[in-house]
Amino acid sequence: MYTKKVLIVYAHQSSGSFNAAAKNAAVEVLTAQGCTVDVSDLYAMGFKATATAEDIKGEVKNAENFCYLEESKLAWEQGKLSADIMEEQSKLTEADLIIFQVLLDISDLFLSAPCCTNSSLPLQFPMYWFSVPAILKGWIDRVLTNGFAFSQEKRYSQGIFKDKKAMLSFTTGSLESMFSPTGINGDMNVTLWPLQNGILHYCGFQVLAPQIFWAPSSALAEDRKSMLESWRTRLQGLLEEKPLSFISLDCFDDKAFQLKPEVHEKHASKEFGLTVGIHLNKPLPPHSQMKAGC
Amino acid sequence: MYTKKVLIVYAHQSSGSFNAAAKNAAVEVLTAQGCTVDVSDLYAMGFKATATAEDIKGEVKNAENFCYLEESKLAWEQGKLSADIMEEQSKLTEADLIIFQVLLDISDLFLSAPCCTNSSLPLQFPMYWFSVPAILKGWIDRVLTNGFAFSQEKRYSQGIFKDKKAMLSFTTGSLESMFSPTGINGDMNVTLWPLQNGILHYCGFQVLAPQIFWAPSSALAEDRKSMLESWRTRLQGLLEEKPLSFISLDCFDDKAFQLKPEVHEKHASKEFGLTVGIHLNKPLPPHSQMKAGC
Repeated sequence: MYTKKVLIVYAHQSSGSFNAAAKNAAVEVLTAQGCTVDVSDLYAMGFKATATAEDIKGEVKNAENFCYLEESKLAWEQGKLSADIMEEQSKLTEADLIIFQVLLDISDLFLSAPCCTNSSLPLQFPMYWFSVPAILKGWIDRVLTNGFAFSQEKRYSQGIFKDKKAMLSFTTGSLESMFSPTGINGDMNVTLWPLQNGILHYCGFQVLAPQIFWAPSSALAEDRKSMLESWRTRLQGLLEEKPLSFISLDCFDDKAFQLKPEVHEKHASKEFGLTVGIHLNKPLPPHSQMKAGC
Repeated sequence: MYTKKVLIVYAHQSSGSFNAAAKNAAVEVLTAQGCTVDVSDLYAMGFKATATAEDIKGEVKNAENFCYLEESKLAWEQGKLSADIMEEQSKLTEADLIIFQVLLDISDLFLSAPCCTNSSLPLQFPMYWFSVPAILKGWIDRVLTNGFAFSQEKRYSQGIFKDKKAMLSFTTGSLESMFSPTGINGDMNVTLWPLQNGILHYCGFQVLAPQIFWAPSSALAEDRKSMLESWRTRLQGLLEEKPLSFISLDCFDDKAFQLKPEVHEKHASKEFGLTVGIHLNKPLPPHSQMKAGC
């Protein structure tokens, strides 16, 4: 039995969706393991997505030339962030693992009452514009405050949340083949880089491999069921999983933040680059954003 | 003199920001050329960022199992989308060029009254979590409706907006060196792929090279001025610029949406992959998301 705390940040408008089913499975399996599971159901909460001066209680420092980065940092230091942000920050501080369960896709299948069936073709649209929906982007923009979630010194492998784990769990409308290095949407590893490196790893999180539900809307009912079953199986061992690999902060110099020459040399004869982003003008390491140990 | 229509979708909270100055420069130079320039100032408009059932006027088809993709498509067909969405769609329909002018960055410099100066170090934070701020993501999620902006048949090089141009114009907090293939944030071309391919090119837009203002917050006042000057110079010829290259839709088969064997073969001996996403397990083509003709 575990005594870990898990926060699921969940973004879907409907309780009948595949995403809801995936979220419910996570709550059920992790709770049964002894975890305390908290869910931030962003649409149900009517979570405010835009970063504005209203996020700061009382007077801001410079109303005329409002700077969100600066003002929110100050408000965080002084305990003056709005109640909704402080509540989410408190949940995040408590949590050992954060799962972002989202419709990263325009289309989604409703298990009980499929709604996206007007088209005779499967709805092969890409992820939610290759990123997270605005309501989750708003959670990221507002909750991961400067000072609370990162600082100039504490980021990447030295990040504030380096003792926590985080992962993306999402559905696609597109088939897996469409998100390959030869597919029309391009390599899924490329699309995941800004999300996993630029948000999660930037704050220091150990990033677990994403849970990708490929095109449930194009799948047979039994295949959708087995997708959920395999997620339930994975959830059993989720807390023991090794995270994805990223490059340690000390591999970079501290002026131009370039790879140090010795790291460069060490990898000169290697076939692949180090990561999707830091690829040294070599082929991308296959699956580095999708599987641990790559 | 031009008679083109330009829409600037602008997302910054403050009129004293560098982004405001960049937006104002675009309005001024393009208007002087005879263009009609419209600005959607998202924060000033209090633009709603989250995609919800309230975006549909009257009753939705399936309130219990609400599916945004389906319901918004239907509402668009029946003229039942909310007034704010319809207004933006009308601006977009009219426009020949759309410029997204955004603080893609957590930090931003206020030209008249620098606000982000508490730190002794320059604020080298990455783009707005390697993506657009939530309010602009909300514009994308809500305005680029299924049917209006894309369909199963009309996307990528066959996309609905193939006769229009679009581009990103943004500031970074990070230095240029940090966004290189050997820099800590990884190659900027990778970060741009989901935005430029997954949103702009997906809808068919001819994507102009991004205007990147590298780290104005770390630059001297005179360097910031010359950044704006070079933007003004570029704006003079912007409407004549060649767009970035993407792969034509007919290079992919229409089942698995994989590159056709003949395209594969043709590029077998080439040094670089075709695009950042469709890289054929080869090195990424340098600058393909940043310069035309790459």
